[in-house]
Formats: sequence, C-alpha cells, structure tokens
Amino acid sequence: MDEIKIGLVGLGTVGSSVLKMITENSHKVQNITGRNLSIKTVVVRNVAKHQQEVPEGVTVTDDLTAIVDDPEIKIVVEVMGGVHPAKEIITSLLKAKKHVVTANKDLIASAGEELAVIAKQNHCDLMYEASVAGGIPILRTIVTSFAADYITEVKGIVNGTTNFILTQMQRKHWSYDQALMKAQELGFAESDPTNDVEGIDAAYKMVILSQFSYGTHIKMSNMSVEGISTIQQEDVQQADAFGYTIKLLGISRRIDDGVFAEVGPVLVPQDHPLATINNENNAVMVTGKAVGETLFYGPGAGGLPTANSVLSDIVSVTKNIVLGTTGNGFNNYQSQVGKVDPKNVIYPYYLSLKMLDAPGQMLKFTQIMTQIGASFSQIVQTKNDDQTARVVIITHEMSKAQLNDLKTYLSKVNTMSLLAAYKVL
Amino acid sequence: MDEIKIGLVGLGTVGSSVLKMITENSHKVQNITGRNLSIKTVVVRNVAKHQQEVPEGVTVTDDLTAIVDDPEIKIVVEVMGGVHPAKEIITSLLKAKKHVVTANKDLIASAGEELAVIAKQNHCDLMYEASVAGGIPILRTIVTSFAADYITEVKGIVNGTTNFILTQMQRKHWSYDQALMKAQELGFAESDPTNDVEGIDAAYKMVILSQFSYGTHIKMSNMSVEGISTIQQEDVQQADAFGYTIKLLGISRRIDDGVFAEVGPVLVPQDHPLATINNENNAVMVTGKAVGETLFYGPGAGGLPTANSVLSDIVSVTKNIVLGTTGNGFNNYQSQVGKVDPKNVIYPYYLSLKMLDAPGQMLKFTQIMTQIGASFSQIVQTKNDDQTARVVIITHEMSKAQLNDLKTYLSKVNTMSLLAAYKVL
Repeated sequence: MDEIKIGLVGLGTVGSSVLKMITENSHKVQNITGRNLSIKTVVVRNVAKHQQEVPEGVTVTDDLTAIVDDPEIKIVVEVMGGVHPAKEIITSLLKAKKHVVTANKDLIASAGEELAVIAKQNHCDLMYEASVAGGIPILRTIVTSFAADYITEVKGIVNGTTNFILTQMQRKHWSYDQALMKAQELGFAESDPTNDVEGIDAAYKMVILSQFSYGTHIKMSNMSVEGISTIQQEDVQQADAFGYTIKLLGISRRIDDGVFAEVGPVLVPQDHPLATINNENNAVMVTGKAVGETLFYGPGAGGLPTANSVLSDIVSVTKNIVLGTTGNGFNNYQSQVGKVDPKNVIYPYYLSLKMLDAPGQMLKFTQIMTQIGASFSQIVQTKNDDQTARVVIITHEMSKAQLNDLKTYLSKVNTMSLLAAYKVL
Repeated sequence: MDEIKIGLVGLGTVGSSVLKMITENSHKVQNITGRNLSIKTVVVRNVAKHQQEVPEGVTVTDDLTAIVDDPEIKIVVEVMGGVHPAKEIITSLLKAKKHVVTANKDLIASAGEELAVIAKQNHCDLMYEASVAGGIPILRTIVTSFAADYITEVKGIVNGTTNFILTQMQRKHWSYDQALMKAQELGFAESDPTNDVEGIDAAYKMVILSQFSYGTHIKMSNMSVEGISTIQQEDVQQADAFGYTIKLLGISRRIDDGVFAEVGPVLVPQDHPLATINNENNAVMVTGKAVGETLFYGPGAGGLPTANSVLSDIVSVTKNIVLGTTGNGFNNYQSQVGKVDPKNVIYPYYLSLKMLDAPGQMLKFTQIMTQIGASFSQIVQTKNDDQTARVVIITHEMSKAQLNDLKTYLSKVNTMSLLAAYKVL
C-alpha cells in the first residue's frame, strides 16, 4: 500500500495525541483512504526532552529543514501555537509544496487569508479544523453542510477555560478568583490566563467562524470584546434568580447588510440549550435561513479531541492527494458585507449599578433611562454597604446605541456607577 | 458560467423546498462551486396538480424518461419516498450515469449497499445526508470528521414525531392518544403513524448511522425495536418523579467485538443533554475513543431543513463533477463485526408491573428477581384499582439476558404482569 509520510512541528499535548492517534487508528484510515499514514519526523525545540516520547523509527530534531527538504514528507502538522515563528514556518512549508494542517487559531484569525493565498499558489491544502472548538467539527460542517444555506447567526461557547470558571461560580458559589485558581490547578487555565479570561481567544474563534459563515473577514479591532474577570458572584446569583445562567458567548449575526460580532458575558435562559453546556465543554449554534437552529456540542479542548480534528484534516488532505484535488481551499465562500448601525443591534440588557443610598437616586436613574428611550422589565434593589445600594435591572429590548448613551449619561453622575451591562438572550 | 442541470423526482414538501432553495441561494452556490445550478425537469405522478408550482422554464412531466434520456441533466434528486418504485427509478438513473441525491431512509436502510455498488460501477455519486435526522448534517460529519477516530457509540433522538408526542405527554400530561391526535393536527404525524410510533423509522436511521459509524450493516431483523404507543401517562409521571424523562432512543454501541443496536423508550436523566431535546427536534450523540462525547442537534424533519441536507449533497456532487472525482462512494468505511452476547448488554432498567394486591405477591416478585440475579435501586408501589397494585422499579445494572429470564419467569405467574421494561441511561 502507498505510504504518506507526515511531519510534525511541536510535541505538546496536541502533538503527542496526534502521534498516538495516527499510530493507533492507522487501520481505519487505511481502510478509508487506501493509504498508510505515518509520522516520519518531529521538530521540537528541545530534542533531549522529547527523544524518549516517540516510537522507534521516528526522527526527532530541532532542525525544520529536516522536514522542509524531505521530498518524502507530504503533509505537515503544526501544533506549536503562537503567531511567530509559526507563520514563517508554515509559509516556508507551503512554498516547499507541503500540505499543512494546523490547530493555531491566533495565526489563522490574524493571517489565515494571507496563508490561504500562499497555499493556493503552491497547489497545497491548508486546513485548520482544530483551531475552533477543539473536538467539535464545526468548520468543515459549515463548509460542506451549510454550503447552500444562508447563515444568519453563529454563536456559542467557544472557550473552555471561561466556561469551566463560570460553571464553578454558578454551582459552587465561588468567586471568580477561586474558580480561576481551581481551573489552573486542573490544567484548564494557563498560569497567565489573560487570553482566555479576557475573551481574546473566543474572539479569534469568532473571526474564523464568521469567515466561514459569511465569507467575510471581521477585524478584531472592529469587535467589542469583554471577558469574565469582572463578573461578581452577586451577578451570577442574581441572574440565577431571574432564571438565567451567565455564559461567555461569542455572537456573530447578520444585521441589515452587515455582520455584527461581539464577545462578552450574556444571560442565557436556563432552558436554552447553551445554558446546559457546562465545564470545559464548547457548543456552537448555527442558524440558517433554511435549516433553522442547529447546535454542535463537544469537548472544546484537550489533547485527543483536538487531535481528532487534526486527523480529520489529515484524512481530507490525504483524500485530496489520492484524487489529485489539493489546493482548492478549505473555505471558498467570499462575500462583501456592509457596516452595522449600532441603532440596529438590539437586545434586552442586564444592568448592575451601584448608587448612593439616598432619596432621589432612583428617580435620577429613571429619568436617564427615559431620556435614552429605554425601559425596565425587572428590577431588584439590595443593600450594597452602609452608604450604597445595588440595583439590578433587566431592560426591555434596547439598542447598542442606547446603551452607549446610557454609559455616557451615567459617567456624568457621580452618585451612581454601572458595574455590569450584559446582553440577555 | 458552466451550468449544471438537475432533475427532481417528487414534488412534495421536501421537493418543493429543494426547488425553492436552489432558486433562492443560487448565488452562494455559484460562489462556492463555480457552477450555476438549476432544476430543469420535475417528474410527478399528477402533472395537472403540480403544473402551477414550478417557475417558468421548468418542465413538469409524469415521464421519467424525460430525465433518464436527457444528457443535459447530471444530477437527480429523488424525494418521492418508499422502497418501490424508488429503487427501480434510482437504479435506472445511475445506469444512465446520473448522480443521485435522495432523502429516502427506507430505501437506503434496506438497499443502500446494493445501490452504492451500482453507483460505483457507473462512476456516479449516490448521497443521502437527508435520510437521517433531517436538517442535522450527521452522516457527512461522521464520514469526514470522525474518519480517524474509533466510534464506540452512536445514539439519539432520530424521530421527530415520537419526540413531539413524548414532549406533549410530559409537559401537558396528555395521554398517548391525545398527544398523537395533536401531532396529526399539526402535521407532525401521518394519518397512519405506525412507522413513526412503532420505532420503525428510527430503526431505519439507526441502520444507516451504524453503517457509517462502524462500517457494518445491521439487519433490521437483528434489532429489537419498540415504539411509544404503549407508554402510559403514569410511566411519564413516575419517570419524572425519579428524575428522568422518557425519550424514544436509538442506541447503537460497540460491545466486545460486536455492535448492539436497539430502538425503544429509554429513561434519560433530566440533566442529560438528550433530555433537553424537545418537540419535533432531533439530536444525535456520537462518542469516539479520541473525541469523547459530541452532540449534534437540529430540526429532524420539515421541508426546508431536509432540503438543506439535500442541497449539501448537491453541492458535494457538483464539486466532485468539477474536480472529476465522482463515484468514490459516500461512505467507504467497511469493517467486520462479531455478535454481541445478550449477557454483555448491561443497563439499569425501569420496570412497571401490575400485580394482585394480596399478601405474598411482592415476596414472589423479589424471589424471581433474586433467582435471575438482579436487584432493585428504587421501588414505588401504588394502588392500580381495587384488586391490583402498580409496582414501579428501577433496577441496578442487569443484562439483557437477565431481562429475558425475568420475562420468562413472569409469564408463568398469573398474578402479575410486566407492563413496561425500559432501559435507564
């Protein structure tokens, strides 16, 4: 049987799981593709450290040219992460006519289009299913199964770390700091958790999901991105009392002729499917004009689930090699979309305010709300400390423009401050 | 731009939605495939009835040869349903070198392998994503995204009619008959609902899902298939009190070297994702050795959702035509599996019994349970009528062999009868 040799750049959690899966499941892959796949060379920074981790016959080296210059290696898996030098490495691999499979969301979100052009020029495949939502096969599903539908919204829980933290805050009534510490202890959060907890990782994924759903590139700089590090236990409990669960959602929606994308905490009704996604799991909801609402749920991270997505890419590339159809692009949908007016981005909001516990304060706030044309649906006032009260509100539907007005008005009032403003689904 | 002309056989709910989607979303499909797709000819039984439903330029005829003999038509969509004459029609289409897309689960479950061989011989594609779970793109996902994983279980709610009925029975405390009538009123159940309510439709889908998951064909005659028509409102309420929701599940699992497949009512814990799938929606859970648990949720039926799956097949076939790669099979995974010993099929069971309300009956039942080596986890006895009691039990894990023994023992005791025996997840 014909052999296809694979190169591997990076041997962390995902890399070693890829190695394991290719070895263990080679029989099924052979059965489907008619080819025998095996890892020939692994490039790592520290050869001595990893030498013992690979089976006999696999070369471990710190020299990338061992892959670039090896004509036998057809497919290279990049799982080192980070934008640099991954970008330069993938570029040189593509130029050497190697097909590339990567799990690198930071890189794809920031330079995916540029790399796709280089891949096409070299008749090579560049695939990155594992870059979004770990084990959930969402990108290929959008490409193949929603090809003829008009997607109107893609939203979901696309960061496992923050979902784990929020689940603990809700179930165990822990503070954000306690839950973060537990997540770090269990390996669900990194020692510097900024990228995850500030919503940046989720935003990268929403950029890629939007590209696949609408054929258009949304700049990170055009997205409002808010994380979970300022969520208070009081908010979690108050949301629960109102019948909601706070989740960090990425939302990307067609509005008018444009696409609106945002990452932030959202109150999700407790009987909504996204409210039932707990711990480190991810879920992506895709709404199509024809198909309606669909949901894809699974492990959002972890070595083997992510390796499974890498393997699905490897199998796709292998089929393309066999059929002589490489270089056709992972996602070929291209479309121009317009701008979205903040006046047309409409949600109910959960507002949490601290205000001086003195007569006339609620009147003042009500006047501001009336001035911006917004109104309440639910309101709860509790004591915050001796001098201040905590007022929590769920508004009727209001626009992002009205919310911005509200923030401007409140910034001028020194007896009250807005602690949180979260969308309500 | 190159045109690809399509033939359509059948113009019911799905057929007219396919017609609508191809017309409305032609721009996106062009963008992805570089081809202009259009329906040229529609074959129906009653031409007069459908003449007005098609746009100008589309031929409506009752003569299949108008498609078979038209060299311009490359792809044919079969949405007439039923095994005959659909099988003969698809055979003649494939022999005329037409690629075929079908939503026909009865046909694919019973003759899919045979038709796949004919397709291959004629270098034609035969695709049927819409045959399982309507709008949920589950078959292509298993083929592409789980290609390298070892699937250990596929289970789910794959019939919308029964899920709608069970949801009403649970929420509105309706009897089965009341809920069925409502489903028929709303168009979710046919006037003869046998295929749906007796689990046969779900069993067809489990045959196809098993084929994709394990590469092996399970005969309907080897599956135990039970429907929902005998479920009592008392069982729904008792399950609820125990913390469960009754769902009609198809379960197909690797056990030892074999595959065990079954359709029947199952008690699903209320916090399990499958318990939250309501009304006519479907959901399929796929468990892979690497990826772990994943779930795919969406509308299980309906014109447009099903048409979306048909369109995803049409786009795949079109890509294959463009790339010159047709005739490679929808699912190429082939594997031999062994038999499963009923001793190794192990679940807790929910048992509902009617027994004479007289001293010694419970002792007799307990003796039988001890004899077969099974034990209770929960037990509730209520009054059934003046003479009989209703005893409801959740057992500890027991095998299907033990359950069969229990049924044999109970059939010999004339003071008690087993009303229901459902697996507990």
